[in-house]
Amino acid sequence: MDVNDRGDDTNSDDTGAGTGRSAMWGGRFAAGPAAIMERINASIDFDKRLFRQDIAGSKAHCQMLMATGIVSKDDGEAILAGLDQILQEIVDGRFVFKTALEDIHMNVEARLREIIGPAAGRLHTARSRNDQVATDFKLWTRDAIDGLDRDMAALQAALIDQAEAHADAVMPGFTHLQAAQPVTFGHHLLAYVEMLGRDRGRLRDARARLNECPLGAAALAGTGFPIDRHSTAAALGFDRPAANSLDAVSDRDFAVELMAAASLCAVHLSRLAEELVVWTSAQFGFVRLSDGFSTGSSIMPQKRNPDAAELIRAKTGRVVGHLNGLLMVMKGLPLAYSKDMQEDKEPVFETVDTLTLCLAAMTGMIADLRVDRARLAAAAGAGFSTATDIADWLVRELGLPFRDAHHVTGAIVKRAEERGVGLEDLSLADLQAVEPRITADLRLDPAGSAAARTSFGGTAPVRVREACADARRRFLDPAP
Amino acid sequence: MDVNDRGDDTNSDDTGAGTGRSAMWGGRFAAGPAAIMERINASIDFDKRLFRQDIAGSKAHCQMLMATGIVSKDDGEAILAGLDQILQEIVDGRFVFKTALEDIHMNVEARLREIIGPAAGRLHTARSRNDQVATDFKLWTRDAIDGLDRDMAALQAALIDQAEAHADAVMPGFTHLQAAQPVTFGHHLLAYVEMLGRDRGRLRDARARLNECPLGAAALAGTGFPIDRHSTAAALGFDRPAANSLDAVSDRDFAVELMAAASLCAVHLSRLAEELVVWTSAQFGFVRLSDGFSTGSSIMPQKRNPDAAELIRAKTGRVVGHLNGLLMVMKGLPLAYSKDMQEDKEPVFETVDTLTLCLAAMTGMIADLRVDRARLAAAAGAGFSTATDIADWLVRELGLPFRDAHHVTGAIVKRAEERGVGLEDLSLADLQAVEPRITADLRLDPAGSAAARTSFGGTAPVRVREACADARRRFLDPAP
Amino acid sequence: MDVNDRGDDTNSDDTGAGTGRSAMWGGRFAAGPAAIMERINASIDFDKRLFRQDIAGSKAHCQMLMATGIVSKDDGEAILAGLDQILQEIVDGRFVFKTALEDIHMNVEARLREIIGPAAGRLHTARSRNDQVATDFKLWTRDAIDGLDRDMAALQAALIDQAEAHADAVMPGFTHLQAAQPVTFGHHLLAYVEMLGRDRGRLRDARARLNECPLGAAALAGTGFPIDRHSTAAALGFDRPAANSLDAVSDRDFAVELMAAASLCAVHLSRLAEELVVWTSAQFGFVRLSDGFSTGSSIMPQKRNPDAAELIRAKTGRVVGHLNGLLMVMKGLPLAYSKDMQEDKEPVFETVDTLTLCLAAMTGMIADLRVDRARLAAAAGAGFSTATDIADWLVRELGLPFRDAHHVTGAIVKRAEERGVGLEDLSLADLQAVEPRITADLRLDPAGSAAARTSFGGTAPVRVREACADARRRFLDPAP
Amino acid sequence: MDVNDRGDDTNSDDTGAGTGRSAMWGGRFAAGPAAIMERINASIDFDKRLFRQDIAGSKAHCQMLMATGIVSKDDGEAILAGLDQILQEIVDGRFVFKTALEDIHMNVEARLREIIGPAAGRLHTARSRNDQVATDFKLWTRDAIDGLDRDMAALQAALIDQAEAHADAVMPGFTHLQAAQPVTFGHHLLAYVEMLGRDRGRLRDARARLNECPLGAAALAGTGFPIDRHSTAAALGFDRPAANSLDAVSDRDFAVELMAAASLCAVHLSRLAEELVVWTSAQFGFVRLSDGFSTGSSIMPQKRNPDAAELIRAKTGRVVGHLNGLLMVMKGLPLAYSKDMQEDKEPVFETVDTLTLCLAAMTGMIADLRVDRARLAAAAGAGFSTATDIADWLVRELGLPFRDAHHVTGAIVKRAEERGVGLEDLSLADLQAVEPRITADLRLDPAGSAAARTSFGGTAPVRVREACADARRRFLDPAP
Repeated sequence: MDVNDRGDDTNSDDTGAGTGRSAMWGGRFAAGPAAIMERINASIDFDKRLFRQDIAGSKAHCQMLMATGIVSKDDGEAILAGLDQILQEIVDGRFVFKTALEDIHMNVEARLREIIGPAAGRLHTARSRNDQVATDFKLWTRDAIDGLDRDMAALQAALIDQAEAHADAVMPGFTHLQAAQPVTFGHHLLAYVEMLGRDRGRLRDARARLNECPLGAAALAGTGFPIDRHSTAAALGFDRPAANSLDAVSDRDFAVELMAAASLCAVHLSRLAEELVVWTSAQFGFVRLSDGFSTGSSIMPQKRNPDAAELIRAKTGRVVGHLNGLLMVMKGLPLAYSKDMQEDKEPVFETVDTLTLCLAAMTGMIADLRVDRARLAAAAGAGFSTATDIADWLVRELGLPFRDAHHVTGAIVKRAEERGVGLEDLSLADLQAVEPRITADLRLDPAGSAAARTSFGGTAPVRVREACADARRRFLDPAP
Repeated sequence: MDVNDRGDDTNSDDTGAGTGRSAMWGGRFAAGPAAIMERINASIDFDKRLFRQDIAGSKAHCQMLMATGIVSKDDGEAILAGLDQILQEIVDGRFVFKTALEDIHMNVEARLREIIGPAAGRLHTARSRNDQVATDFKLWTRDAIDGLDRDMAALQAALIDQAEAHADAVMPGFTHLQAAQPVTFGHHLLAYVEMLGRDRGRLRDARARLNECPLGAAALAGTGFPIDRHSTAAALGFDRPAANSLDAVSDRDFAVELMAAASLCAVHLSRLAEELVVWTSAQFGFVRLSDGFSTGSSIMPQKRNPDAAELIRAKTGRVVGHLNGLLMVMKGLPLAYSKDMQEDKEPVFETVDTLTLCLAAMTGMIADLRVDRARLAAAAGAGFSTATDIADWLVRELGLPFRDAHHVTGAIVKRAEERGVGLEDLSLADLQAVEPRITADLRLDPAGSAAARTSFGGTAPVRVREACADARRRFLDPAP
Repeated sequence: MDVNDRGDDTNSDDTGAGTGRSAMWGGRFAAGPAAIMERINASIDFDKRLFRQDIAGSKAHCQMLMATGIVSKDDGEAILAGLDQILQEIVDGRFVFKTALEDIHMNVEARLREIIGPAAGRLHTARSRNDQVATDFKLWTRDAIDGLDRDMAALQAALIDQAEAHADAVMPGFTHLQAAQPVTFGHHLLAYVEMLGRDRGRLRDARARLNECPLGAAALAGTGFPIDRHSTAAALGFDRPAANSLDAVSDRDFAVELMAAASLCAVHLSRLAEELVVWTSAQFGFVRLSDGFSTGSSIMPQKRNPDAAELIRAKTGRVVGHLNGLLMVMKGLPLAYSKDMQEDKEPVFETVDTLTLCLAAMTGMIADLRVDRARLAAAAGAGFSTATDIADWLVRELGLPFRDAHHVTGAIVKRAEERGVGLEDLSLADLQAVEPRITADLRLDPAGSAAARTSFGGTAPVRVREACADARRRFLDPAP
Repeated sequence: MDVNDRGDDTNSDDTGAGTGRSAMWGGRFAAGPAAIMERINASIDFDKRLFRQDIAGSKAHCQMLMATGIVSKDDGEAILAGLDQILQEIVDGRFVFKTALEDIHMNVEARLREIIGPAAGRLHTARSRNDQVATDFKLWTRDAIDGLDRDMAALQAALIDQAEAHADAVMPGFTHLQAAQPVTFGHHLLAYVEMLGRDRGRLRDARARLNECPLGAAALAGTGFPIDRHSTAAALGFDRPAANSLDAVSDRDFAVELMAAASLCAVHLSRLAEELVVWTSAQFGFVRLSDGFSTGSSIMPQKRNPDAAELIRAKTGRVVGHLNGLLMVMKGLPLAYSKDMQEDKEPVFETVDTLTLCLAAMTGMIADLRVDRARLAAAAGAGFSTATDIADWLVRELGLPFRDAHHVTGAIVKRAEERGVGLEDLSLADLQAVEPRITADLRLDPAGSAAARTSFGGTAPVRVREACADARRRFLDPAP
């Protein structure tokens, strides 16, 4: 929303000129109260985005009014035809939105009156803008949830594809950004498939919870007209009408819940984005982004800046900021409707737009990603990352308590460190000098280390391939 | 956490004295690096709260190690007995927590070694603190969810009790804190029952989603020991083991999801709290808090400050702040475990404590609330709140389009306003002067207005009584 | 920003159709990587708002390059003329912004090359987009601060006007929304003048702190060209060049600091807005908003909804959300420039727009406010609000310790409460029955109570009138 | 705050037992309303931390009451002696804080009465807990600001020491975590010195702004006693008394402003912490933390986890969360005092404690840091980081427009990349094949590149050494 363009002029020499004209209106507003009030009050600039939902809701309401005899068949049919015409006008870009009419509801109703005359006035029977906007916004949110779910599935698909392709590509598994144990690249990517699975679960739950229809709550108290709320609810795909009319018009839980789910998803994306930034650094060099997702420099053609990853990481702030903002808006609001609640739509719209864009960009980056398996493998062997395997061998083969095995392993690692070699470079004699019972059966290499971790959910390639198949079945069946 | 007591001394004359001793450590820290590192690093001060969960997790792990033959029966039984003894020591307050041992896990393991000797070292086989703490914290969170669910049910019960008692107490229904239409007090309270119902639904969904067991993920890669993750998961009441070991140790979604659900619940409570503050003002005077939930003044004994309501309203900031904080902690963290994640527990603990306290205080206030029905009724009649009933009558009886009916009603209200009387004080002649077709059938009174709104979810007492019964069935069966 | 319009189409039947075409790009994006990358990467949609600052910065840089001989006089003059022409083209709306050119800097430079040919390429000598954007954005922020300062001064002026007009209008002073002691309406409004004074102080400090010029930091390391950073700094009104080139391009403190100051101001406005909402309720009825700042209802013409006040209250969430968002963006960013920082501008722009609008609307509401002095006075006398005056009298005249005086007062209030009368209705005999030494000198009335509180900063009308004069001198001299 | 210990028992089998006893109080609270109310209402657990400030404020108030004759010399001296005794009791740990007395103010006053009898009751003349707590909290905040300022100066000192030691250690200057141009390690560290300088500036401004004394505002309206607010203000080190009594008791700007300044500082620390985590990774290996600030692993003795850096990075979430929380608490609060404001202290205390600890730990890490200059130098030469120097040379020596010079440089870099060599490995013939006018004067090496950037604020060692001296003078004179 660009509520106030005067910011563009702040560097202008002549801004002072306006000061005297209307000091009481805030110094530099030429406009009188009406203009300021219109600016702060009107919502049509952003709520016109609800036009499909508004018209769908009005049609369902009209059909119910006809079925219950509250509105005559003739009037009802005129209304329905008029609404269809308006929808087409908006889709075609021929509809003129008027700020003076404040919002999408009044714009549509005013146009309906132009088209069909006074019968248009019957549409608002047993309805109020309070239940109307709650219904429109829930419908929009439900659609947005469905869209985000498909986008998340697409990202899962891209991740699983790469995970399968690199199910056995050994890399360092990090804690504290320090190599801890070898893992496989496929295993690493599947962690994000799980996160996205939970993200989709949260959306699914939010969708089920919001799916109660506010229509018929009217202004706040219900109505005396013999309406049939169950039929409008069903017509709009809701599971049932909302149970309490005051709650129905004052509830924005569904918006907050979507934003909370989006915030967690944005955090997940920021983690993967951070890894892409680190992995594409010259020092790591684990992966290479495609040309399409790199930004170059006119002077340094070798530069492949991970701009999209950085932007995805950053946009977490925007998403979480909006969640925070709406919670603050709703804090301490008495029932039922307060104008404060008009501040609900823009943050939700922008959250959905932002997350949609981030998911698409991340999906593109992952699908295009080229993995430097040789560099991954080399890094996997550095840093004594197989030390745990020694300890496990001591426990398993020699029966040492784990803490004692740790102690022995520490001594072996120290010996390798002093010699400046890797663990796999130590001779059997070296090992036996620390613990005489060690035999040639103890073999150390990163690939073997990863392959041995066959516990359920573990990093062994055999497990990773199974996990890919499971993930397809759990998350992508049928394919997105 | 009181990490740094020096704040207490900031007004002291002698604080400067310490400056010279260790300028490089931050000016006024007498301690060297070890002490500062211990202060920032140790978590035992707060994670000792996980002791039940830690011991339960260790017992399940030990039993699995025994069942799979990884640990012998003798060692396993010694471990189990030792853990039981430690649990009792902690419950009895005899256990000495040591900061040097950093966290609950090492405190328990060190004590176990004191009790049973080296066999204690076998407990940590095929496990790491990374999967251990994730398991402990999930178990604690799951317990906390169950506790909050019971507390919310108790508040619902108190609200339904009051709603039933006042199902027919007419009051103004507000929009913009301006009277809009008459509603009933019972209907108003039931709106909060719906909000709490959604809050409980969010907790239920969060509980189901978190219920995957991290145990066996080990440090991050799984293990080569032939463990049985399904059995430990089942023993601890989890639905299944977590599918990916990297995700299992790096996931804190469950903490954020609980905090997001708690934030929405806190916002709901803040709305009711705001209403209590407004309703107990001298100007409104709708309700009276009990002595137990009022704060007096030694000088003004008539004062009944709604301190608890104000504190509940305020504590929303604390809860939302913690949500925001943990999202910020997790932003951009690479896999798998980073020490940043140690910042997860305190905000969750404080969120649960805060919400628990707020729910209890609100339940108490609501249960004790005395409603001034006469004052509610008087307010319900003011402000032309039955104007919509005129419009509805004109539509229903005279067939006017709703927008036209609005116009007529406006003229009637204006007439009443000019005379300084209420709508119900206008004579039939007055009404007919505006619209001749109006008959004596048009009756206006707040109670009648409310009683007429019999649509599903509407405010009519008959509906409210049904809604109370429904709410008991939906939310409180069996009773909390 | 409307980064993704597909949200408008989410209810469309045919959205599924796109899925197959480009599943790897996020499901429903028809666009290939280039298009998604452009969408997420380009900033021209919002940073074009920096055009004045960008051109001013380029002109200063060019003049310095000429003065130091790095660019020839001829080339320099061509550049300056070209930049002036571009400025005029943008002001006239004739400039075509191109998304393919990404940002305002490249749009301007590309146009300059069209106008003056290859010499345009000399402008970017010893400069980079990194120091250029930091300079532009600082200049914009500085201008915005100046604008907000004027808007705040205008609101202070409106408040002081009303405070003077109602310096002696007695009203209840509230704690916990319960009447505590009588104050005057003027005194109450002056509290907000103080808050705004601090808000302006924060802006002033932020302005002084940001006023160091990044220009010449180049990409991040400074430059080997013999530039004169002091002269560009002076030409652009900066106090000095920034001292460290890495800091100069990676610093966004100035944006956060403005947002933090804006957040506090928004909170202040939200408090006044809440009071307006409460005060305009039928139950309070303290003030009446003008027609221009009330929203009516077609059906209830008497309704005067305080929509603007509610929106001002709500927009606090937006402002604080943006602050929070940018802090999250900057968290954990390594030096020097990361693309994450492109997320800085939109929240700052929207914060400034929002606060500007809120200040203007509040100024309008306050300037127009009609105060119901009779109703204020009646409320001031209710609730035993003069009880403290009794206690003070007992201390002053009878020498009682304050705590003992409290005790006596409590007994007197209780007596009045039992009789259902106000304190001023008790006879001297009544008072003496509690404390025999009370004399007829003890007079109780709200106006007298307020008038007696003549301590510095107190509510006595004499003090309020002085405070108004002081406030004009401190805050509005010269007049805004 | 551990408001509710029941969380510890959530896994207990017997928690259900309490349910029946007091279902109406929230299910599992054994306590009746009084106990819940006390839990939510009392603040002594945390506000006892204000004891020094409370007693200092009371002494100043008492001295003023004596000087103005409101309290007799004898009573006043008894009060002063009693307060000194109480201070000593608290310092000695002999004072018993009582929750039933709610807060620090009542605890002190009750004890004073025990010590000196009824005269204690005279201390509260012309005062209220509202102005008292505002004064105490401002004094505490002022002291905390002074402490933080010293801690920040200590960190600046450690950074400058390291910057001087490594003023000529060449390293890659990064944008997007990709090498861009060589810089020096000292120059990089000085960027943080600038950030901390601004942080200290914000604290200094906040300190000056808060330094108005609330004492004498009494409950909210001022007082009729002939107090001398200027003398109490001066005695407590305030610049002046607060100008408006309502504002004085309802203002918490100073707390928010401190938290906003702390949030920015925490973000700065998080950036340095992120760099330490990245730099200590095996892949970067730029620096090595001391043993004191590394965390090892019992099994991997070579591991040096940067736990403190990670915790510092994470604690940004806590600090920003608290800022956000307090802004939310204050949003929409009517004047003057509401109990909501009791939620101000804990977040401020914890913010100060957290930032103090982070500053100390960072100071320790920086002071101890060992820099691997060889590794830095090697990295500085990789990635064609001197490409900009070619372009600058072409502009300076051959007079090419900068954009054209970019083009030539791109061709040269491409040639080096194709051959798999660095820019410095290209022969003059190679260079001349691209641009025949290039001569042997064009020399490329990272150290020379850095040394050439001698512009003010640039990275040349000569500039860095000057900047270190300047920084000492600007920030550390006199030494911290």
